[in-house]
Amino acid sequence: MKQFINTREDVVTEAIDGLIATSGGALTRLDGYPHIRVVVRADWDRSKVALVTGGGSGHEPAHAGFVGSGMLTAAVCGDIFASPSADAVLAGILAVTGPAGCLLIVKNYTGDRLNFGLAAERARAFGHKVSMVIVDDDVALPDLPQARGLAATLFVHKIVGAMAENGANLEACTLAAQRVIDASRSIGMSLDTCTVPGSPKENRIPHGMAELGLGIHGEAGVEQVAAIGARGAVARVVEKLAATMPKEPHVALINNLGGATVLEMSIIARDLLASPIGGHITLVVGPAAMMTALDMHGFSVSLMQLSTGDDDLLAQPVAVPGWPGCKPVARPAVLPLPDGLSPVRAPASPHAATKAFLTECCNVLIASEADLNALDAKSGDGDTGSTLATAARALIGAMDSLPLADHTQLYRAIGLELSQTMGGSSGVLLAIFFAAAGDASSAGRPMREALQDGLARLRQIGGANPGDRTMVDALLPALEALKSGLGPAAKAARKGAEYTASLTLAKAGRAAYINAEQLGGHTDPGAEAVARLFEHLAK
Amino acid sequence: MKQFINTREDVVTEAIDGLIATSGGALTRLDGYPHIRVVVRADWDRSKVALVTGGGSGHEPAHAGFVGSGMLTAAVCGDIFASPSADAVLAGILAVTGPAGCLLIVKNYTGDRLNFGLAAERARAFGHKVSMVIVDDDVALPDLPQARGLAATLFVHKIVGAMAENGANLEACTLAAQRVIDASRSIGMSLDTCTVPGSPKENRIPHGMAELGLGIHGEAGVEQVAAIGARGAVARVVEKLAATMPKEPHVALINNLGGATVLEMSIIARDLLASPIGGHITLVVGPAAMMTALDMHGFSVSLMQLSTGDDDLLAQPVAVPGWPGCKPVARPAVLPLPDGLSPVRAPASPHAATKAFLTECCNVLIASEADLNALDAKSGDGDTGSTLATAARALIGAMDSLPLADHTQLYRAIGLELSQTMGGSSGVLLAIFFAAAGDASSAGRPMREALQDGLARLRQIGGANPGDRTMVDALLPALEALKSGLGPAAKAARKGAEYTASLTLAKAGRAAYINAEQLGGHTDPGAEAVARLFEHLAK
Repeated sequence: MKQFINTREDVVTEAIDGLIATSGGALTRLDGYPHIRVVVRADWDRSKVALVTGGGSGHEPAHAGFVGSGMLTAAVCGDIFASPSADAVLAGILAVTGPAGCLLIVKNYTGDRLNFGLAAERARAFGHKVSMVIVDDDVALPDLPQARGLAATLFVHKIVGAMAENGANLEACTLAAQRVIDASRSIGMSLDTCTVPGSPKENRIPHGMAELGLGIHGEAGVEQVAAIGARGAVARVVEKLAATMPKEPHVALINNLGGATVLEMSIIARDLLASPIGGHITLVVGPAAMMTALDMHGFSVSLMQLSTGDDDLLAQPVAVPGWPGCKPVARPAVLPLPDGLSPVRAPASPHAATKAFLTECCNVLIASEADLNALDAKSGDGDTGSTLATAARALIGAMDSLPLADHTQLYRAIGLELSQTMGGSSGVLLAIFFAAAGDASSAGRPMREALQDGLARLRQIGGANPGDRTMVDALLPALEALKSGLGPAAKAARKGAEYTASLTLAKAGRAAYINAEQLGGHTDPGAEAVARLFEHLAK
Repeated sequence: MKQFINTREDVVTEAIDGLIATSGGALTRLDGYPHIRVVVRADWDRSKVALVTGGGSGHEPAHAGFVGSGMLTAAVCGDIFASPSADAVLAGILAVTGPAGCLLIVKNYTGDRLNFGLAAERARAFGHKVSMVIVDDDVALPDLPQARGLAATLFVHKIVGAMAENGANLEACTLAAQRVIDASRSIGMSLDTCTVPGSPKENRIPHGMAELGLGIHGEAGVEQVAAIGARGAVARVVEKLAATMPKEPHVALINNLGGATVLEMSIIARDLLASPIGGHITLVVGPAAMMTALDMHGFSVSLMQLSTGDDDLLAQPVAVPGWPGCKPVARPAVLPLPDGLSPVRAPASPHAATKAFLTECCNVLIASEADLNALDAKSGDGDTGSTLATAARALIGAMDSLPLADHTQLYRAIGLELSQTMGGSSGVLLAIFFAAAGDASSAGRPMREALQDGLARLRQIGGANPGDRTMVDALLPALEALKSGLGPAAKAARKGAEYTASLTLAKAGRAAYINAEQLGGHTDPGAEAVARLFEHLAK
């Protein structure tokens, strides 16, 4: 089963249970499983107009994800892509309707119209005030007699939800809902079909094609068009929307049909706002998955022409998980890059002894190139020697530009030089080592302790511990022994390097991906380089 | 191209532009495109500790979707699944860091460690206070030396984000971040690999299998297991988490890796809370897509052991699009079904004339069964006659249980009878017709007007207008002409029925799906039934 479900029959009730359990107590349901699946605001007191919607499941977070203070009072959930029964709708109406009455918000599908319509009649027979609006925002076919209800339903939920929360009566809510519907238009586009739980996926849309003007139940779109990227997709959608769109301020709702990535939806949002109609979009909801078709790899755009007061109703805070908020389209000023990205170089200062010392160290590494490469070939790609030798040659070449007379600045300058010439992880790690040592030096720490501080930082960033078969195994004991002089330090480094040959499990660096048989008996090339440096200096 | 992108190179910058344009002015960026992609809080004044994170893109809404008041100060975005450069990280640090300093929150990947680490050193060289924590919450392999950073990173963002917003200093923020990391563990599971923009998808996971213990970059999980539904998947994940989990109160973060549906995620949430560790989960974040791997059809669960004060920090409101809130796990009482679902039947009352009239009408329909079926076969499945005749027979059988002497109640009783015996759309529509007529009758409207009210409601729910080739074309003129008597009504009904034969486009009902050639010249069977009824009554 290529889905995280249990049984096909329990998909909707188990999903409702999960939604309720993670709602923080905001939601509950009627005791009508398995046929009556009605999600209800837990804090509802029937003192205001109730808003009830619903329809087939598979459109999550619609409908239950919009139940809560400031939006819906109850959602009646059918089976996947199937209308709930009139009994289920009636249960929802009777459970939440008080003297202020109830508005049913129904998307224009025959099953929903009939079942909500019949339930309304039965509720009226109990003396309840019930009105009903039918959302038909799809503009895929401009002269379609029965345009489908798509994501503009969310505009009704939000605007009328805010009005009801603020105490508007049923007549005002019904009129506002119809006004919102009349001012709205939507269209969808998808690159693929959706997967109905427990069923195989239909492969209707050929590779390289997209469907324009599709619904939210996997039904075919009105035309197949070439899939020409985000900008092309948005252009086709905009063309349909613009055909009948007044050049007035609009709110745009950018809806993920379920399977588009967040990255793609952000790109679509960008391209919509940059499109010819972008200038008439002053508010935006999303991009977010609000009215989905299961895992459909597509999006829809809904537009609503704004009337006075709509912006406040759209912005009014709500406590529902599905609503991503409504925000003004903003084009904030881009911030200038900060100063300091080009590293400050300390002025060169000659110092013969330091130059000789550094050059000697570099020459040790250059002379070890072939040996270290050979060692590295046992566990890696055989370039440790060349990497170090190349860096050493570059350092020799840059020697006269370094602040040789200022040891604190020298650490940092060496680090900078290595980060720019050495490349790879080892270059960055040595740069961090010298930079951190420089920091410690500038804070007054003596040389050995500064180097130990550098090593501590290198270990934090590189994640290497003693015994991990890295240069740390030689450098750590060498710096510790250095307080007794270079001789003991060299001995400790050598002992540490030899220790790496006994380690059959590398835990950091590239050798971590090599198995034990390949590693056993060979010294780590980084540790060997450290040992050779100290041995040379101790002579 | 099976993705809504433009060019592979521009994916990240275009997505960032879309995010910023839809942020309502809350976000902006540094002027460093294409290499430096840093998203920054637009309202930042450097007065508090700055929180900077980032890493490869493809994990949206992480990282930029968590930038905002109460969470992150800046996010440094690399290319898809690639670390940002040290220069980009440094730009982010320098752009937001003031005297209070900066905390870098880094997930445990070599590239991120090195580049954030080097940038930290360079920022320190400017005198900035910079600390860094490394998130390594993955428990896929318990003794992995370098556990990956997964979605528990969000706990760090949220808890330390709240502390920083409340004025905590850098040391306190850093200690808290490390405490959160130490108290966290995560593991992921997926049914499929992800699709890297512009690249073909790797088909690594066989059908019927799932991967357990995978990362967020499409890398393979530690084992492939049989895909055994939501409960089975959760059980495997729980097993790994429980192995080292203290039996103390935890917060769970239920993360969609990108391609799981909202339905599936709700089911996973339900099964997690019902699992053996469910009793130790007192707070929950999500389910939501927070730290994704593009479109990966999988999920991850992150747990953090709660310490004193964490609940307040987790609950503190934030203004970022990616955070779904943190809620107590609640088990609200299920509400009883409302009374009234079983329709109230008016008591039977005999009335000979009414019984005779109704029986006569029923017999007209029964006698027309074959003719109406034949007409329906021209445009539908040929069962209109049988549907009506069956309902008529049932009505005759129920006659003595009807409130024949109470005409107002009789309408509703007929509607109820039809809705239960007739089935299909037509049964619901006629039930609505009679129920609405009963409402009008009980409000004092005379019979003809009550029937007109019923027809108006039927048209609203059924969506049928005159000229749509339905029974409305006969019933509407008949009821209008009825004020002049049954004779004119019968004439009007017949004229209306004949009119339907001239209509070649059905706009409602099933005939809407039939093309013009098939329809032309045939009377609509529903309109024909109405005409026959009125003609019989006029005799």
